[in-house]
Amino acid sequence: MARRNKIYEGKAKIIYEGPEPGTIVQYFKDDATAFNAEKKAVIEGKGVLNNRLSEFFMTGLQAVGIPTHFIKRLNMREQLCRQVEIVPLEVIVRNYAAGSMAKRLGLEEGMQLPRPIVEFSYKDDSLGDPLVPEEYIAAFGWATQQELDEIVSMALRVNDFLSGVMHGVGIRLIDFKIEIGRVWENDFQRLVVADEISPDSCRLWDIETGQKLDKDVFRRDLGNLTDAYTEVAKRLGVLPSNVTHPNKPTLIN
Amino acid sequence: MARRNKIYEGKAKIIYEGPEPGTIVQYFKDDATAFNAEKKAVIEGKGVLNNRLSEFFMTGLQAVGIPTHFIKRLNMREQLCRQVEIVPLEVIVRNYAAGSMAKRLGLEEGMQLPRPIVEFSYKDDSLGDPLVPEEYIAAFGWATQQELDEIVSMALRVNDFLSGVMHGVGIRLIDFKIEIGRVWENDFQRLVVADEISPDSCRLWDIETGQKLDKDVFRRDLGNLTDAYTEVAKRLGVLPSNVTHPNKPTLIN
Ligand SMILES: Nc1ncnc2c1ncn2[C@@H]1O[C@H](COP(=O)(O)OP(=O)(O)O)[C@@H](O)[C@H]1O
Ligand SMILES: Nc1ncnc2c1ncn2[C@@H]1O[C@H](COP(=O)(O)OP(=O)(O)O)[C@@H](O)[C@H]1O
Ligand SMILES: [Mg+2]
Ligand SMILES: [Mg+2]
Repeated sequence: MARRNKIYEGKAKIIYEGPEPGTIVQYFKDDATAFNAEKKAVIEGKGVLNNRLSEFFMTGLQAVGIPTHFIKRLNMREQLCRQVEIVPLEVIVRNYAAGSMAKRLGLEEGMQLPRPIVEFSYKDDSLGDPLVPEEYIAAFGWATQQELDEIVSMALRVNDFLSGVMHGVGIRLIDFKIEIGRVWENDFQRLVVADEISPDSCRLWDIETGQKLDKDVFRRDLGNLTDAYTEVAKRLGVLPSNVTHPNKPTLIN
Repeated sequence: MARRNKIYEGKAKIIYEGPEPGTIVQYFKDDATAFNAEKKAVIEGKGVLNNRLSEFFMTGLQAVGIPTHFIKRLNMREQLCRQVEIVPLEVIVRNYAAGSMAKRLGLEEGMQLPRPIVEFSYKDDSLGDPLVPEEYIAAFGWATQQELDEIVSMALRVNDFLSGVMHGVGIRLIDFKIEIGRVWENDFQRLVVADEISPDSCRLWDIETGQKLDKDVFRRDLGNLTDAYTEVAKRLGVLPSNVTHPNKPTLIN
């Protein structure tokens, strides 16, 4: 691996300068955090799985014409992406009530929503990523109204695509979060899906059993997180060849 | 006072059946509550002041063509209104950061917002009137998208009018909350401003001194609430003739 200049280290990833101007490298760590980093752990293999799964989802989105920052996977833990200006929002799409929404509205987790709902949190750890009305976003200049309209459309398309992917492997897509970035092409600005899409940023329930296959396993101490993510990867046929597999013979290398 | 049938008793008012079908009587109590009724007190004279002040604001709104439920004041504590179907939202308009918004975004109270912001809480005491994204509102059927658009326009007009009223008497309108109701006229449904507009539902700061003249005086134990509301009423020339005035000679009656 070439020596890279670190741009930013977040809770789950490190961002390095990429080999070309306008590119970055995302390095996926094994760190897991929840409740605004009040709960922390190192989950062996998580970074490798998320690097693979995010590649899988991003390339799928691109194939249906939804632009993303993803260029290519470099190795087990790293992927090359276009550098973007991140819109400081967590764009959340919900199909079933869960998590903060269920709590906020006193709904039972798993209740199907009357329709998919897009909501926004302001991305600021020191404030705990607070839910914000759409009105705040244009008022504070976090995104223009035109960008917001485009973000909502993109988010709903991502939802259609991801719901389909999951449906195909017996998983219910309860909700997910994406981040959006701005890129410039000549004088033209576009929005692309950035950051990652992985079981860290989705709620995924087995359709039959309701078993959770996402970060709630960690948040709520429901078992082994790597096992849950491995199950998702396995169903999607994107199991990395080299993660902790207790059942696999160890190769001498 | 005729015997009235009670329809509902809330935190600050009692709603009685009105003399004609399609009317109700709002009785303004002296009860003050805050923090979702965790803090409670009886503030002598508050009901009388709010009955008068709400009359004053509602008739002013009607005069500029913003429809309200208000018909006429009946006595010191009661007013006759059209019965409405309440849209279960607190419609909040903010001109300056304060209260929950300041907390949520880590803003200093009193910071002017880039523009007036309309936001919504779902009116449900058991949930603590949670802030809700606009998306929830249509999705759960609390109001249609068309109603929402109309509510936002009405709320901004009310803001223009009330800001003007307050500006005229040296008060800054920081924020306020209104409730909206549906009324039917033949087969035609309209939205009207309902409930009350008073220092219970606004944040009002003296422009010169920053002194609070609203319910925050009670919420934050800043002094005598009746004095604060009396100051507002006095400036607006709507001082009821009969409330606790320490400086007024007591009449024998
Ligand atoms: N293509 C990109 N260009 C620039 N920044 C990005 C890109 N994709 C994601 N990011 C940002 O890089 C960081 C990824 O690291 P992460 O551990 O998720 O950080 P955080 O703890 O801030 O969520 C995030 O802040 C994310 O917004
Ligand atoms: N014109 C009206 N018709 C019917 N209900 C109304 C009307 N105006 C206000 N209301 C409702 O009556 C109640 C007024 O009493 P209040 O003490 O403010 O109750 P709450 O504790 O629910 O806020 C509120 O629930 C309000 O939504
Ligand atoms: Mg992140
Ligand atoms: Mg009320």
